[in-house]
Amino acid sequence: MSKGRLEAFSDGVLAIIITIMVLELKVPHGEDLAALRPMIPVFLSYILSFTFVGIYWNNHHHTLQAIHQVNGRILWANLHLLFWLSLVPFATGWMGENHFTQWPIVLYGVVLLMSAIAYTIFLRQLIAQEGQDSPLAKAINSDFKGKISLGFYITAILLALWNPRISLVLYVLVAIIWFIPDRRIETVLTE
Amino acid sequence: MSKGRLEAFSDGVLAIIITIMVLELKVPHGEDLAALRPMIPVFLSYILSFTFVGIYWNNHHHTLQAIHQVNGRILWANLHLLFWLSLVPFATGWMGENHFTQWPIVLYGVVLLMSAIAYTIFLRQLIAQEGQDSPLAKAINSDFKGKISLGFYITAILLALWNPRISLVLYVLVAIIWFIPDRRIETVLTE
Amino acid sequence: MSKGRLEAFSDGVLAIIITIMVLELKVPHGEDLAALRPMIPVFLSYILSFTFVGIYWNNHHHTLQAIHQVNGRILWANLHLLFWLSLVPFATGWMGENHFTQWPIVLYGVVLLMSAIAYTIFLRQLIAQEGQDSPLAKAINSDFKGKISLGFYITAILLALWNPRISLVLYVLVAIIWFIPDRRIETVLTE
Amino acid sequence: MSKGRLEAFSDGVLAIIITIMVLELKVPHGEDLAALRPMIPVFLSYILSFTFVGIYWNNHHHTLQAIHQVNGRILWANLHLLFWLSLVPFATGWMGENHFTQWPIVLYGVVLLMSAIAYTIFLRQLIAQEGQDSPLAKAINSDFKGKISLGFYITAILLALWNPRISLVLYVLVAIIWFIPDRRIETVLTE
Repeated sequence: MSKGRLEAFSDGVLAIIITIMVLELKVPHGEDLAALRPMIPVFLSYILSFTFVGIYWNNHHHTLQAIHQVNGRILWANLHLLFWLSLVPFATGWMGENHFTQWPIVLYGVVLLMSAIAYTIFLRQLIAQEGQDSPLAKAINSDFKGKISLGFYITAILLALWNPRISLVLYVLVAIIWFIPDRRIETVLTE
Repeated sequence: MSKGRLEAFSDGVLAIIITIMVLELKVPHGEDLAALRPMIPVFLSYILSFTFVGIYWNNHHHTLQAIHQVNGRILWANLHLLFWLSLVPFATGWMGENHFTQWPIVLYGVVLLMSAIAYTIFLRQLIAQEGQDSPLAKAINSDFKGKISLGFYITAILLALWNPRISLVLYVLVAIIWFIPDRRIETVLTE
Repeated sequence: MSKGRLEAFSDGVLAIIITIMVLELKVPHGEDLAALRPMIPVFLSYILSFTFVGIYWNNHHHTLQAIHQVNGRILWANLHLLFWLSLVPFATGWMGENHFTQWPIVLYGVVLLMSAIAYTIFLRQLIAQEGQDSPLAKAINSDFKGKISLGFYITAILLALWNPRISLVLYVLVAIIWFIPDRRIETVLTE
Repeated sequence: MSKGRLEAFSDGVLAIIITIMVLELKVPHGEDLAALRPMIPVFLSYILSFTFVGIYWNNHHHTLQAIHQVNGRILWANLHLLFWLSLVPFATGWMGENHFTQWPIVLYGVVLLMSAIAYTIFLRQLIAQEGQDSPLAKAINSDFKGKISLGFYITAILLALWNPRISLVLYVLVAIIWFIPDRRIETVLTE
């Protein structure tokens, strides 16, 4: 099976996820600058989630470069990943509207954690097909960033019960770690 | 006529259908965990519908692999299928908000039934073009799963008038039956 | 310039237009069958508009098959067409919520008329590029269906001031006329 | 890395941005012509923003014609551009609902300005990859239109504090300047 439609469908879903988040920025009724002030937390959470979805799209793009075919398991692992990412707009909206309080911060972390686990499963399925000696398997290898992210998410979720602000800092840190595109695959493929 | 744009348009519509369902998960006003409790049925119905649309996308993908060209009848049979699938978000929302009561369960079944009938018509049009000896015709052949699903949907719609919970179990069963991707086509094509 | 992205962007916009119309079908609060009754006119207008957008997508698809390249004028003529079609969801919603009364019927006709004019301009630009001797020019030729449609729309808009039901019948007639896919281009291309 | 998915994802996001703006045109409750009158400013701002997003799509399309590969920096510069453009629907809605008053006009200008800056950064990244002697670098060259636009936006934002109507005229002027598609690249590529 060719990978073309998997990419097209994922691009569609990710494009919609990243764009419908902006619908949470509801047009305020006032016409002065003060009317925008209550939107600042919603806007900040939008920036954070836009970055996360952008990171997933970037990594998805990079990874599928190294793949030539897909199978049924990969299709479902991809849908599973898209399912968790599709909950990002909801978690973002809840977090933004409640000004980064405890439970919204926890839920946001859970959605990010489940997305990260889903992405790990997706990578496993890709490697299972390509083989342990494939360039992809070498490129992913230890998956250092992936493991660190999972650790950060779990820590952040637990810490949120004590101090949600620290959790938020951890989420931002993960975004920064991933912001640098995944050169592993690029490097191995070029070799 | 090439099949490229049929795939692209269907991918777009299916991606939007699967994603706008998440808009039914309206951001709650409270900030504690209790605020999420009323959303559980909406969330469960979202999982079920996400799975169904995912199944349709998977099968659509598999089936069109076996096709090289499309004609006007196929384009309309495809639009007819997308029409019924486009009603899934509405039926899902009504079912979730009313905690799986009788009539929403019936409507949900009707939308799934009509989608299944539309998919059968779509397959017929594909086979009519490819010929009765084509790999696709052999792969679809008896369409065992398709016939079982239609039977399950009709049973579930009728049973809902008596006990809607059983109908829900039947819908989940159909999803499980189809969850395993359609290997028929893969197998025949590989031969 | 290649036509690939023109097709992809148009597919995206048309897929969204056809799908966001379903958002007008707002989930009713009641849980019995009676709660669906007020939605019948909204649903009927959805069917009509789904058919119209489907027709445009079909014809757009057919026509671009005959084209190899696009230029700046074609890109803008296409955006102009998408602009008018993007107003279809609004006109559909207004018509459905007001049970097909006078002014919503007029507005619906105006949006359809402007879309039809925009499509005519789009075809002119395509022919201007391909040349008067091109297969496309021969296929479009007299554009019988296009002229009839314009006539029907104008008649329907004027009649709506007297009896909006007749206008609605005329809109349905245009949809039926176009429902049969545009064989002109298929035929000429096959030759 | 091939540019195919960058184009597909951008087409998806731009198609959604241009289409969800129409959701701001909320179906009015009245059924007579007067019910549409309050929507005129919302509609006018929709036309303006549709034109701007259309211009960006056109230029994005033209520019990527001249590119063969993309790298990680280009992917992020593109996401950065899409981020600012994704705020256009919000700024458009606020401006339309407040009948083009001061602060909404300022915000609209800021979003356009940031989008223009993001597009300039995107072009820089493309040229950095293609080299200073590439056809693209020659085509963009002095980027006369880009510099004029930035000047117009800054002037408009400052003037809005005094007379927002003049700012609106400046925005329309920029749209007119860009309406003519970017022949620079077409010309150089043809050579």
